[in-house]
Amino acid sequence: MARIVMKFGGTSVQDIERIRNVANRVAERVAAGDEVAVVVSAMAGTTNELIDWTREAAQFHDAREYDTVVSAGEQITVGLLAMVLQDMGISARSWLGWQIPVATSGVHGSARIEEIRADTLLQRLQQGQVAVVAGFQGLGPDNRITTLGRGGSDTTAVALAAALSAHRCDIYTDVEGVYTADPRIVTRARKLDKITYEEMLEMASQGAKVLQTRSVEVAMNHRVPVQVLSSFSDAPGTMVVDEDEIVEHAVVSGITYSSAEAKITIQRVADRPGVAAAVFGPLAEDNINVDMIVQSASPDGTSTDMTFTVPRGDLDRALKQLEAVRKEIGAEGIIARDEVVKVSVIGVGMRSHAGVANRMFQTLAERGINIQAISTSEIKISVLIDAAYTELAVRALHTAYGLDAN
Amino acid sequence: MARIVMKFGGTSVQDIERIRNVANRVAERVAAGDEVAVVVSAMAGTTNELIDWTREAAQFHDAREYDTVVSAGEQITVGLLAMVLQDMGISARSWLGWQIPVATSGVHGSARIEEIRADTLLQRLQQGQVAVVAGFQGLGPDNRITTLGRGGSDTTAVALAAALSAHRCDIYTDVEGVYTADPRIVTRARKLDKITYEEMLEMASQGAKVLQTRSVEVAMNHRVPVQVLSSFSDAPGTMVVDEDEIVEHAVVSGITYSSAEAKITIQRVADRPGVAAAVFGPLAEDNINVDMIVQSASPDGTSTDMTFTVPRGDLDRALKQLEAVRKEIGAEGIIARDEVVKVSVIGVGMRSHAGVANRMFQTLAERGINIQAISTSEIKISVLIDAAYTELAVRALHTAYGLDAN
Repeated sequence: MARIVMKFGGTSVQDIERIRNVANRVAERVAAGDEVAVVVSAMAGTTNELIDWTREAAQFHDAREYDTVVSAGEQITVGLLAMVLQDMGISARSWLGWQIPVATSGVHGSARIEEIRADTLLQRLQQGQVAVVAGFQGLGPDNRITTLGRGGSDTTAVALAAALSAHRCDIYTDVEGVYTADPRIVTRARKLDKITYEEMLEMASQGAKVLQTRSVEVAMNHRVPVQVLSSFSDAPGTMVVDEDEIVEHAVVSGITYSSAEAKITIQRVADRPGVAAAVFGPLAEDNINVDMIVQSASPDGTSTDMTFTVPRGDLDRALKQLEAVRKEIGAEGIIARDEVVKVSVIGVGMRSHAGVANRMFQTLAERGINIQAISTSEIKISVLIDAAYTELAVRALHTAYGLDAN
Repeated sequence: MARIVMKFGGTSVQDIERIRNVANRVAERVAAGDEVAVVVSAMAGTTNELIDWTREAAQFHDAREYDTVVSAGEQITVGLLAMVLQDMGISARSWLGWQIPVATSGVHGSARIEEIRADTLLQRLQQGQVAVVAGFQGLGPDNRITTLGRGGSDTTAVALAAALSAHRCDIYTDVEGVYTADPRIVTRARKLDKITYEEMLEMASQGAKVLQTRSVEVAMNHRVPVQVLSSFSDAPGTMVVDEDEIVEHAVVSGITYSSAEAKITIQRVADRPGVAAAVFGPLAEDNINVDMIVQSASPDGTSTDMTFTVPRGDLDRALKQLEAVRKEIGAEGIIARDEVVKVSVIGVGMRSHAGVANRMFQTLAERGINIQAISTSEIKISVLIDAAYTELAVRALHTAYGLDAN
């Protein structure tokens, strides 16, 4: 007997037929004697329809009202899934965020879970009732519904698993697990049996879409064993675990790419103290995350070019901020490009192996791919390249690090 | 300055365009200096779609889960309307049933409002904020969402008006008020300027669809002045008021018809004590309301035919109950018919005028319409006739009681 949290996304519950499939998966666990809490998203398409309506209602709208509207999607699926389970003879009830409650911060639209007071829910689990929990939503300090931002249902599931001291959190998706690279691009990509929290965190934040970054953070902080698996097959998935649970580490576990970046170059900035602060200060104040930064001296030594990346969605706002400081820093011009992609090589094995970065640079150089910026962490190397080379770069690196399936 | 509750049904909020129209109506009241709470239903079609899904999920389903699913409809509209109002520069916020809270009984699917604790909401109104309230939903003693049954938003509006001691509750519909008869049948029907609570209650329960019966009960009990008016025109509507606010009463205020009945005849029941109890006891226990009852002696005096009506939706259940007692009461046969209609003549003036019933019987007799059953109250006479004669009967009675417009 185990206590399990299962999470199903929008495509897994997009109609009653699919909801029955989810109920069957839950029934298997119940039959095995497990205590089961199941977290579900809105039916695929519903959230987008609701968001479209909010945009039609008002271009700039109150995030509290937005949360009221979009949280209705999960409310519908939990009721329907509870009904289907009951119809199969399984004791079940739905739980909305405010009913548990899932206490969150007051930042509507992208709230953070602060505490899940799951005592009552746990009692019901122990009495053999399946808890059907609405993902993505919580209750703010203002007694109003909050939402956690896109992909927030993953975070609900992992945080609930932590609150319930569950043995495992199973995240069901439309792929069979975490791959060494996006299988749509790399046909020889392999499914990983295990991956560490740290690697999963880097992969999620560097473009792998299989888990929401925040959910991996929560899993890592609370050491929740997470499994990523397919809701449409019976193949075992990928376990996200502690580093010491993996006996032999590959140097590199995966290659990711992200098109979510845009590149900004400020030309001929005066080369004097305080310029970087003048450029990045206003961006930080406007909550724009600057990622890769490259500074290159000009031939005459009196000015410099400054290149950096920002999230693509923040590009317009960033340019507006920079236009305002342009004169102050004496810049000649500001150039923005969004046909760039960030390719990352990730692996905890990197820590104990030299030459990993060099192999990346060499592999790309051999294919004639120019590196526009670099950023690294202990277990990751990222490069910014021209978006046209995305597939070529990812495939070449996948081969170069010995990740190709036989 | 007045405190007003405005209520808009599903067709008035069926898309963002229509929601803007509602917002404009609210804005007019705000501009006039009124404190405004606006109660809205789900977008037309949404509730039916949600109900269809619950049926697809399970033929027999938990009413608590049903309430969770269908209440999502109003949740969406309140958020959208609040956004549109804010976008027009009007301070507004949405309120869900559990947030106010609207405390109801625990009968999920058809809960009754027990108390609206509107203190916080009232404070906000007094600060000039428009309250956008989800109709149809409340919070049960089990801390779960309840719904009030079809048309429940009218009741939410009236009960909220009572709780807020509002000056008026305006119910916006797709007709211009309460008519002397259904204008789709009687082209010479007239809109009433005023109608008493008692008359409105009879009209609602005898088939006029303009207001939900329960909402009129609440209005009458709390003496809430209710106005029924069109959301698509500026014509004044019908005021539902106390009897003493109407100076001169017409003998008859309106003619209604209802196709929601079915007729059951039990043939040749033994004519002895206890038979009626044996017939109606099981029906009462199964919550089936028996309305009109006619008993006719058989020629030989030893047995009798018993005819009565039940709500059409309960007919199958009623027949099942009766089949079970058939032998016990020695009945020869049970005949059910649903091609019947109940036509009612309603008016408080009836109390002080003789001959009202007789005029009804005579008018129908002149048209060759056979009366199958009769029931009366102090201010109403209802007859059951063949459904094929519906229009003929309603038109003839409308003329006979002098209700035709010039």
